[in-house]
Amino acid sequence: MPAQTAVAIVPVSGPDKTAAPASPDYFFEGAEKLLEVWFGSSLEVDGVAEADTKNGASLSLRSIPRQEWDALCELAACRILHAMSNECMDSYVLSESSLFVSDRRVILKTCGSTKLLATISRLLELAETYSGLDQVVNVYYSRKNFARPDLQPKLYRSFDAEMDYLDRFFDESSAYCLGSMKSDRWYLYTSSLPQAPITCADHTLEILMTEMPQHVLDLFTREACEDGPDCTKKTGIDRIMPPGTAIHEELFDPCGYSMNALVPNSDKYATIHVTPEPAFSYASFETNQDHICLFAQTKRVLECFQPQKFLLTIFSNEHSESAKATQQQLWEKEMLGYRRTSIQFVRLETDETLVYAHYVRKCKSSCGSSSEDEGERSE
Amino acid sequence: MPAQTAVAIVPVSGPDKTAAPASPDYFFEGAEKLLEVWFGSSLEVDGVAEADTKNGASLSLRSIPRQEWDALCELAACRILHAMSNECMDSYVLSESSLFVSDRRVILKTCGSTKLLATISRLLELAETYSGLDQVVNVYYSRKNFARPDLQPKLYRSFDAEMDYLDRFFDESSAYCLGSMKSDRWYLYTSSLPQAPITCADHTLEILMTEMPQHVLDLFTREACEDGPDCTKKTGIDRIMPPGTAIHEELFDPCGYSMNALVPNSDKYATIHVTPEPAFSYASFETNQDHICLFAQTKRVLECFQPQKFLLTIFSNEHSESAKATQQQLWEKEMLGYRRTSIQFVRLETDETLVYAHYVRKCKSSCGSSSEDEGERSE
Repeated sequence: MPAQTAVAIVPVSGPDKTAAPASPDYFFEGAEKLLEVWFGSSLEVDGVAEADTKNGASLSLRSIPRQEWDALCELAACRILHAMSNECMDSYVLSESSLFVSDRRVILKTCGSTKLLATISRLLELAETYSGLDQVVNVYYSRKNFARPDLQPKLYRSFDAEMDYLDRFFDESSAYCLGSMKSDRWYLYTSSLPQAPITCADHTLEILMTEMPQHVLDLFTREACEDGPDCTKKTGIDRIMPPGTAIHEELFDPCGYSMNALVPNSDKYATIHVTPEPAFSYASFETNQDHICLFAQTKRVLECFQPQKFLLTIFSNEHSESAKATQQQLWEKEMLGYRRTSIQFVRLETDETLVYAHYVRKCKSSCGSSSEDEGERSE
Repeated sequence: MPAQTAVAIVPVSGPDKTAAPASPDYFFEGAEKLLEVWFGSSLEVDGVAEADTKNGASLSLRSIPRQEWDALCELAACRILHAMSNECMDSYVLSESSLFVSDRRVILKTCGSTKLLATISRLLELAETYSGLDQVVNVYYSRKNFARPDLQPKLYRSFDAEMDYLDRFFDESSAYCLGSMKSDRWYLYTSSLPQAPITCADHTLEILMTEMPQHVLDLFTREACEDGPDCTKKTGIDRIMPPGTAIHEELFDPCGYSMNALVPNSDKYATIHVTPEPAFSYASFETNQDHICLFAQTKRVLECFQPQKFLLTIFSNEHSESAKATQQQLWEKEMLGYRRTSIQFVRLETDETLVYAHYVRKCKSSCGSSSEDEGERSE
């Protein structure tokens, strides 16, 4: 097991996850805003870190001090609950979702009514100041359509506004809406350096789930579980991770769950976030792990959460043969127990490929209709 | 050659294509709204036309009288210029684009500031009244993003409004935005009967082109060509059609071109529309022909028009092996002289597949930059 430090520095209930008001119109937006940024240095030649010696900086984002990350999260209106590290990355569980920091990559994922994009300007400053990383090699900003965009800060009520804001910082960008504009869908903004260095194999699997059954949702409460580790075990989440994975998690009061997992000796991670209120239940799974085939990984996640509907995305660069194989499988194969309402295959100018697919559980006579067309237009 | 009738019933200049005002802000929206509807009859059993005898109707849309088509076009604020027929379909060149009517399929394509969707209600009535076709088996409504949505009738300024309007008439629909939301893109609304009968192979190729070179644009004017047939010959359009194709076309005054082509003894067609004003040049090509491989067909069209940018869509049902092969080619192969900025592969719940691709001409040192990111956001 890698060296770990887990420190709880604040009460375990995040500001937006305290007891739901008696008010029947209480709502929490589980769907996250997700920012992933890959940095580089203009001092590097062909990705070789000559810069190390040229300036004092370590060329690693991990040299940014903890208090700077605390301040960064404040800009997004969330905060760090606790941290864990291994040889390759630092993991932070937030009051709303997660932060992962490795040498060249930052992943910031925030749910609720957080203001993720407010961190970008400061993030670029920190990377340059503390790490000598003055280039953004790739940036990805994505999210599902919100269930209640009207409850979001103004900037996040339509993706057009988010695109415009991101264009202040990044050039040569493109943006996509995947899925039916009339129901569940997923937005992506991406920008890459024209001569982005060839990186090693990389991929990301995301599964965004809604309408979980009551018996599953009940487990993500303080009534059913003592604490985070207890919830991780009772829900079976510990069994969907690659073996030996280090986990730190939070079971919120009275309900709600966040988990970060680190694969030993690697920058591979997984993260799960659950909003268990039946009226707006939502669960997300994200990983870049390469121990388990992503198709098998997906099945494990679905068995654990049993969602009525989910959307899935697999992002792969041209070097990840395993992810590309799973993308092809998704195109050709059925997902047991689910009806695929649409699937889209995108090849970007960078030759990265992206698969988006949306599924609805096949109805037994017992269950109500669950057409994808029920999904209300929300933007 | 099939029997043909070509009758010019109005002056050859459409209302929106008369001489451009001296005013420098004269603009014409070349990008078309495109509606394709496939009809069926509830009296049919497994697609077998028992209904013929059960009611007087011929179960063919071609039994709808000409004056009804004239009235229908009026609803869209355009009109029929002339007609041509063969054994399988009727073709109409309009003041703004085209109308094709075969036994079970209507294709209405209108450019400028026309109101295509205003025809739907009446179209459904006509199909039932004259043809006993009381079911819409499939409907497709699509368009490129407009260059000047602000100059469109209110309903057409955002695709969301068009979707809402279409939902008044059709169930179980879905809608997609293909291409980058930040530049050229293509919107599709589609709805199918849950048990849509298995049809024969069908596909559609569309190529939507902008920024043609001056020497190409010049040919689509009354200065360069005497009339439609002269323009068809001088531009080489006659040579990109399958052999033996019957053509009727219009060269507008002072500029602009529309052409409908019918492949003998079939319901295969092609149609071309050109807006040659350099400030907002646009040309579209559409066909369902299966004589020439669609990849070769695409190359012929590009050689003829030499656009700086174009987007391409190929729609194929599961029975069209040739179209599916071309879809795969587009995914894997380069288009000579062009840089592909993105390609998307979509599989709908009906198992129809759709490929969207966007290309920008590779720049020689001589030519100005032409990044896809130049495309102004227009919706």
